Amino acid sequence: MYFDNAATSYPKPQVVKQAVIDFFNEENGSFQRTDTENSDFIFKTREKIARLLNVESPSNIVFTSNSTESLNMIIQGFLKKGNHVITTATEHNSVIRPLIRLRKEKMIKISWIECNRNGLIKPSDIMKNIRDNTTLIIVNHGSNVTGQVQDIEQIGNMLKKYGGKIKFLVDISQTAGHIKIDNSKIGADFLAFTGHKALLGLPGIGGFYINPEIDLTPLKVGGTGVLSELLEQPKAVPLRYESGTMNTIGILSLYHSIDYLNSLTLDKIESQLKQKTKYFIDRLSKLDNFEIYSLENPLGIVSFNVKGIVPSRISHFLLKDLNLKSRSGLHCAPFIHEFLHKNPFGCVRLSMSYDTTNDEIDTVCNYLERLNENVAVIQNIKLPKIYEMPSIRKVEDR
Amino acid sequence: MYFDNAATSYPKPQVVKQAVIDFFNEENGSFQRTDTENSDFIFKTREKIARLLNVESPSNIVFTSNSTESLNMIIQGFLKKGNHVITTATEHNSVIRPLIRLRKEKMIKISWIECNRNGLIKPSDIMKNIRDNTTLIIVNHGSNVTGQVQDIEQIGNMLKKYGGKIKFLVDISQTAGHIKIDNSKIGADFLAFTGHKALLGLPGIGGFYINPEIDLTPLKVGGTGVLSELLEQPKAVPLRYESGTMNTIGILSLYHSIDYLNSLTLDKIESQLKQKTKYFIDRLSKLDNFEIYSLENPLGIVSFNVKGIVPSRISHFLLKDLNLKSRSGLHCAPFIHEFLHKNPFGCVRLSMSYDTTNDEIDTVCNYLERLNENVAVIQNIKLPKIYEMPSIRKVEDR
Repeated sequence: MYFDNAATSYPKPQVVKQAVIDFFNEENGSFQRTDTENSDFIFKTREKIARLLNVESPSNIVFTSNSTESLNMIIQGFLKKGNHVITTATEHNSVIRPLIRLRKEKMIKISWIECNRNGLIKPSDIMKNIRDNTTLIIVNHGSNVTGQVQDIEQIGNMLKKYGGKIKFLVDISQTAGHIKIDNSKIGADFLAFTGHKALLGLPGIGGFYINPEIDLTPLKVGGTGVLSELLEQPKAVPLRYESGTMNTIGILSLYHSIDYLNSLTLDKIESQLKQKTKYFIDRLSKLDNFEIYSLENPLGIVSFNVKGIVPSRISHFLLKDLNLKSRSGLHCAPFIHEFLHKNPFGCVRLSMSYDTTNDEIDTVCNYLERLNENVAVIQNIKLPKIYEMPSIRKVEDR
Repeated sequence: MYFDNAATSYPKPQVVKQAVIDFFNEENGSFQRTDTENSDFIFKTREKIARLLNVESPSNIVFTSNSTESLNMIIQGFLKKGNHVITTATEHNSVIRPLIRLRKEKMIKISWIECNRNGLIKPSDIMKNIRDNTTLIIVNHGSNVTGQVQDIEQIGNMLKKYGGKIKFLVDISQTAGHIKIDNSKIGADFLAFTGHKALLGLPGIGGFYINPEIDLTPLKVGGTGVLSELLEQPKAVPLRYESGTMNTIGILSLYHSIDYLNSLTLDKIESQLKQKTKYFIDRLSKLDNFEIYSLENPLGIVSFNVKGIVPSRISHFLLKDLNLKSRSGLHCAPFIHEFLHKNPFGCVRLSMSYDTTNDEIDTVCNYLERLNENVAVIQNIKLPKIYEMPSIRKVEDR
């Protein structure tokens, strides 16, 4: 059983598999740069993503290898010396680490917004922290730890009064493909996505939307296939940010997986996952040794701890006894845990997809019910406390 | 017919195709970070590449999305303010553009080594240009324009007397998979490779070897799957340079394609391509309107111009009349053309693989012979001169 969809979705749709197999049987080679007719699918994929996010210009959909690259390209390419950034406790290390690095390299200042015990932030907290030198707000749309979705439309609306002076970056890594994202209502300047999670594409492909009025310093520069005579990186987007041979099979996978998602409809995916998480959480919440951090959510995530048991042991039991893949630990999001629990080893995360069956959920719930009864036996085995949990209070710039 | 293997190789070996198909049919998902047994293939691929390049530590083989990312990571991460770099006229834009950018951002100085009319440089020219502040030598092992291979062992040996003070970066994008690269003889500190050319892997995977004694500032930072509690990027290599979800299918393709290359043997691949380029060049050199820039070479490249005809028109004719894919223009390597010809539109490049048949070569040669006879009719159509060719003489730092 596969309950690690928040890391990488599995299985991929049949149309994606077939497209990749067909790819090998056609004389394509370097098609993306030589043959207009064949290269078309890359532009068409940009169009599909632009429609999915409801942004106007497909040329402003840039491909990267993953969200991490997208976020580094935006954060490193946009922030200037002494800028102030507001972000949240729910961010992934792909936001935290670039910011911590720029704090040293470019003396940027960072304000961290706290969240509640399910991972929800208050949009008004962001507004309260705005300063004269605030240039960027970064918000993780959906938490990869609890499944909590933030109200980014409200944040976007609140930011309107600054007339574009403060840019808005939304990390949609966990939400794209799970729920509708309509940027005409959000007004984000950047939307960073990855292909291998709910968008159901292959690993190693991601990208971002960039407001056409913004110019970033590209993270990397080099061959662009055209305009080879220029010694500096071309200005035209997306070329400007897409040096080198891309993961064309990854793009091909998105070309097909987005059609698949549209045919299912995001509404249906969202309601299905809300139903599944609700059922799952309802059952777990009856277990006296369980502490649950997730509320009903459209990301399919259920996170918890079992009192006195190191979370990775639960994942180990699930793998050994049920052949079930889950993910335990800090989930590359070290700060949110500070607001959920006191366990330095993080928590257990089970993450479902549209394809997860009710039978599978019942099997896990039944197993966890038995585990709940046997906690007294298990909890005698304890690990030493090896490190302290990270805290945003220690990195806040006043 | 496919004559654009120097851009992206085609076809991929059957074992690669089958491995990708199998990938879809196994419950793998995010296997690379959760399950030691399954993730093993990534480490094993590092081992295979380490053996192929004859370097000691597989952990010092880092995966990236392509050579461009490898070269940017090394060049941007290594060079410091005021450093002097020596490089060559044969470099790709993935070296030229990062250097031109750092010239502005970090005031680095660059010396460019000229090449002869086939793309060959003199190692002694590099030595003559070494200054007190020279920290890096960058050499393109094999030219993607002419197929010329440089004597990097000689350069490496000459650099030994500097006792590691000057680092040596070799771009093996065109040579890895075509000829033996033995770093125990070269002593390079960095070897930048891509997977989608002669290594016969998928597009969107590449990497580099890094001397274990060197620490780079990572190009991007973020989630590393483990050590999530650290707010700064972990020091351990390869983790340090591999944030975010990787192109695991790309790595899988290399796992199998390298076995395939080893079973063929690189000696056989090299001798076959030398034979094919020799035959091809011998036939073309009899044509009075042809100017050929390639000598017999193991990269399978034959580049030329036809007097009075814009090179892209030749590629267009070949595509239309023979359904043959070739590549015309500057090939993302703007400087080398200055030493080959005076054509601002670059040249025509036909690039073969081990799988290119003699029949295919004969068909092209026959076609080009007829074209040679009809040049008088074709050459009347002329394009305006739209830009000047780039020249290293204009960017040389004295």
